[in-house]
Amino acid sequence: MPVGKSPARGDTIVAECPQTTGSDLDTFGSRSGYVLREAFSPLNQRPRKELQLNQGFTVWLTGLSGAGKSTIAELLGPELTARGRKVEVLDGDEVRTHLSKGLGFSREDRDINIGRISFVASLLVKHGASVITAAISPYAQARAEARQRIGSDQFVEVYVRCSLNELTRRDVKGLYAKAISGEIKHFTGVSDPYEAPESPDVVVDSELETVEQSVAKILAELEKRGYVRADVKAGV
Amino acid sequence: MPVGKSPARGDTIVAECPQTTGSDLDTFGSRSGYVLREAFSPLNQRPRKELQLNQGFTVWLTGLSGAGKSTIAELLGPELTARGRKVEVLDGDEVRTHLSKGLGFSREDRDINIGRISFVASLLVKHGASVITAAISPYAQARAEARQRIGSDQFVEVYVRCSLNELTRRDVKGLYAKAISGEIKHFTGVSDPYEAPESPDVVVDSELETVEQSVAKILAELEKRGYVRADVKAGV
Repeated sequence: MPVGKSPARGDTIVAECPQTTGSDLDTFGSRSGYVLREAFSPLNQRPRKELQLNQGFTVWLTGLSGAGKSTIAELLGPELTARGRKVEVLDGDEVRTHLSKGLGFSREDRDINIGRISFVASLLVKHGASVITAAISPYAQARAEARQRIGSDQFVEVYVRCSLNELTRRDVKGLYAKAISGEIKHFTGVSDPYEAPESPDVVVDSELETVEQSVAKILAELEKRGYVRADVKAGV
Repeated sequence: MPVGKSPARGDTIVAECPQTTGSDLDTFGSRSGYVLREAFSPLNQRPRKELQLNQGFTVWLTGLSGAGKSTIAELLGPELTARGRKVEVLDGDEVRTHLSKGLGFSREDRDINIGRISFVASLLVKHGASVITAAISPYAQARAEARQRIGSDQFVEVYVRCSLNELTRRDVKGLYAKAISGEIKHFTGVSDPYEAPESPDVVVDSELETVEQSVAKILAELEKRGYVRADVKAGV
């Protein structure tokens, strides 16, 4: 299926992966290697698990500011609801208001913030919720701790990829311009590091895919794990 | 049934309430009035609600340090589990570690801490959990906000009463001695206020009751609201 074309209902897009283009390599260097690993990994061949519709899980969206995490969460949530799951979205900005007011953007404060999100997610997962977190979560170590706390089987790490060039071009909130000029400090991808996942469970790419395609990939992974039925098709 | 005697299985102890003695009045003054109001309130006569075993709720234990909140939570939790409910205990001390590290005991910090507990409890309640919170929660305003956030029907405020005299006598952790000597500042009941609930849903009294009696009272309230079956009797 050509990149950029929305999948028709019933299309199989599980095996689809973002194309590794020259510009990807320019931006992310050898990191793009994960894309190839993911596409051809034996892990992708593992058989579909039995349905366990009462088992909670967390879709952990990680990626740069503006890459499309919240947009994906907004579309994925109703898709899960339509499949009979009870959904809770923990959006990074909202969580900061409720759980992390006063925390800044130093590595330590970011780690504490991510720790709180994963603590709450783990409680909700215990009680059968379908949790979607949308937070930059730039550090691999903090994401690994979230995976451990929530449980690897229940943790679906989704790398929401977008090149810095494209994000700077979009710059919907004007934040990248301010980060580049130095007006905003500690801005991930500009003045603070972003450690891209080396072996995410799903890779989506807001530069190369529609949001519907990204959501369909995540749903395919959830179907494979038995967390949603494969035969229910809602909007995506 | 005489105070201090454990109830036999099948005993009805719903209507039992702590006796208001002279020493109570000495310690709490006119506040003890709520006990009488609770015992004879028409609210206690309202009919048992229909069973709604998938509906989440929060048992909000409030009271001075050492009054017995955690002990009640430890016994109530398994009783609810035995009745088929999925339980989550949010203990004040543990929550401070996970969600509120760095917060102190000023009124503002206490309010933030209680706000976080109620935020997490409200999420869990949405997903059908039986939540038990055990935190001093000294300010009426913060508890009222928790009730509003969680939903009044799903919020069971339990005042865990114990006189300061008795707490100072027990002083299991030696905290009251340190608070009275001034070594510990901001200690609720000694150097910081405790605003006893004026119309709690349940009053238990660790000075006058066994923990089993206290738990049985809470279970009776939950049965009345339809959150647990009335005909299941476990340890209590």
